[in-house]
Amino acid sequence: MAVSLFLFEEHWARLERSLREIRITGVDMDRLRRRMMETLQAGPFREAMVYIQITRGAGATRAHPFPTKAAPLELLWAQELINPYEEDRRHGIGVFLQPDLRWGRCDIKSTNLLANVLAHQAAREAGCGEAVFYLEDGTITEASHSSFFGVLDGLIRTTPNNPGILPGCTRGLVFQLAARLRLSIEERSLHRDDLPRISELFVTGTTSEVCPVVRVDGKPIADGKPGPVVRRLQEAYREVVAKFLQGH
Amino acid sequence: MAVSLFLFEEHWARLERSLREIRITGVDMDRLRRRMMETLQAGPFREAMVYIQITRGAGATRAHPFPTKAAPLELLWAQELINPYEEDRRHGIGVFLQPDLRWGRCDIKSTNLLANVLAHQAAREAGCGEAVFYLEDGTITEASHSSFFGVLDGLIRTTPNNPGILPGCTRGLVFQLAARLRLSIEERSLHRDDLPRISELFVTGTTSEVCPVVRVDGKPIADGKPGPVVRRLQEAYREVVAKFLQGH
Repeated sequence: MAVSLFLFEEHWARLERSLREIRITGVDMDRLRRRMMETLQAGPFREAMVYIQITRGAGATRAHPFPTKAAPLELLWAQELINPYEEDRRHGIGVFLQPDLRWGRCDIKSTNLLANVLAHQAAREAGCGEAVFYLEDGTITEASHSSFFGVLDGLIRTTPNNPGILPGCTRGLVFQLAARLRLSIEERSLHRDDLPRISELFVTGTTSEVCPVVRVDGKPIADGKPGPVVRRLQEAYREVVAKFLQGH
Repeated sequence: MAVSLFLFEEHWARLERSLREIRITGVDMDRLRRRMMETLQAGPFREAMVYIQITRGAGATRAHPFPTKAAPLELLWAQELINPYEEDRRHGIGVFLQPDLRWGRCDIKSTNLLANVLAHQAAREAGCGEAVFYLEDGTITEASHSSFFGVLDGLIRTTPNNPGILPGCTRGLVFQLAARLRLSIEERSLHRDDLPRISELFVTGTTSEVCPVVRVDGKPIADGKPGPVVRRLQEAYREVVAKFLQGH
């Protein structure tokens, strides 16, 4: 059975880039890719998700310098896709604003996620689906495990790629979807002060896909329902996935 | 054999506080303490160091919310004290200035240390013993695994405790040593621009103890040799340790 992976090149390139930035060397990426494909082919999956985590390897002592003779440790698993976000995509979620206390290299996908986890948990306890981060000056960056978008004056806006946000693979796809739908989109940060004038908000991620945001800190955005832009993007997303599945 | 731990109350209080801030609950601290003592008593140690790491426990899936039924995982080990810093304490080390890209809660002792590790490794590769962090405005915070002190106009200065630095246990002891020696000390940050006027620099840590800094980015501080203030503090530190060992 042939196995194909949605947005594979994008995810793989980001993994390679993150390894480079963290300076983990000696990973045989071709072998890792083969092992991933073997794992996927071995399992009885209908639709699978793959998780890969790579460490610098075991050091001789607990110390800050890189271990000198360590071989990278590769962890890879595949599982049937659990998609807990279907209801969220239908009805939209509330988000909880949190100060962005994360480190300065959030463009690196790593496990250095304590700030994300604490903020996300606080959001859940406030009855929200996601935490959205803002800088000291009120500029919104992204969500705890999603990219963040808003529609203001008919224009879709999202934070420009920079060391403070993760270059989301689904975020990248949204630009293609918007182009196909002839929707105006711009890499330009939103600010907390923009919220009263926002007509739509949404977050994107690998498993959350394109998910409407209908409340911020308990207050409804516009009429508190998913708007036409996010609905069109969701539809276009499903079409791209359907086409991808047909082609393989 | 009786076992006693240097600065135990300070380290234990910081561990408890970090658990609280990270919101890891359900750790039986009395049992953990007993196990630590048993481990130390079981081993043939002359002078041991103990490392403790606690996680929130294993979740059912990889997700940002706290796992609901996980029990904290406690890792504890003891080993004969390796002290690789004796030469450094005698001759002093060079430090390498690095932008402080760490997260906003460095007052929590956690394993969220990727920024520290990358900066420390860069320092080692530049032939230095430590990396010292500065904020965008040039304010110096601390070192990658040590607290940072300088002597300016006869006054010992160090960064005030705040969410951006770890409240070092040895850092705390330095205030007591300074008081005993009638040296003036103040919680007041140093700035990169202060460096040309600095007469002495030093870093402190649990294993590095009190270690002179004699070069910054390759340039000597004062005459490039450990100065009288750091020598007096080192001596006072050894006296406190000797007294502690006698008393047990």
